[in-house]
Amino acid sequence: MSEFSYEIVEEISVLSSNAKGWQKELNLVSWNGRPPKFDLRDWGPNHEKMGKGVTLTNEEFAALKEIITRM
Amino acid sequence: MSEFSYEIVEEISVLSSNAKGWQKELNLVSWNGRPPKFDLRDWGPNHEKMGKGVTLTNEEFAALKEIITRM
Repeated sequence: MSEFSYEIVEEISVLSSNAKGWQKELNLVSWNGRPPKFDLRDWGPNHEKMGKGVTLTNEEFAALKEIITRM
Repeated sequence: MSEFSYEIVEEISVLSSNAKGWQKELNLVSWNGRPPKFDLRDWGPNHEKMGKGVTLTNEEFAALKEIITRM
């Protein structure tokens, strides 16, 4: 059995939501007590269920910002 | 048994890479022949293995761009 903990440190933005209450969100999330990372992910209502997503380090987020602002 | 197909229509940007050759990439990916979506995901060498990631519709990508350019 394995466990992990997470804490949504900052809710940055909700990118979309659907009829069932799931939302695609950009947040700062701390995993297992570690320093928070940027996190792009689907969440169920009230963050009770977690869907698929990616975490981004500060460096990856900076790279994403650089490319996205040029698009 | 289920199958799915995908095609990387455009490789937009590599956000990071590690010693094992895995890369975090922003691409345009078509799933099961459908119109391509933005896709942020880890990939193994030569795109032979697919890691976790998220797909974004045009609307979600526009929302991400709007928030990210203000950060």
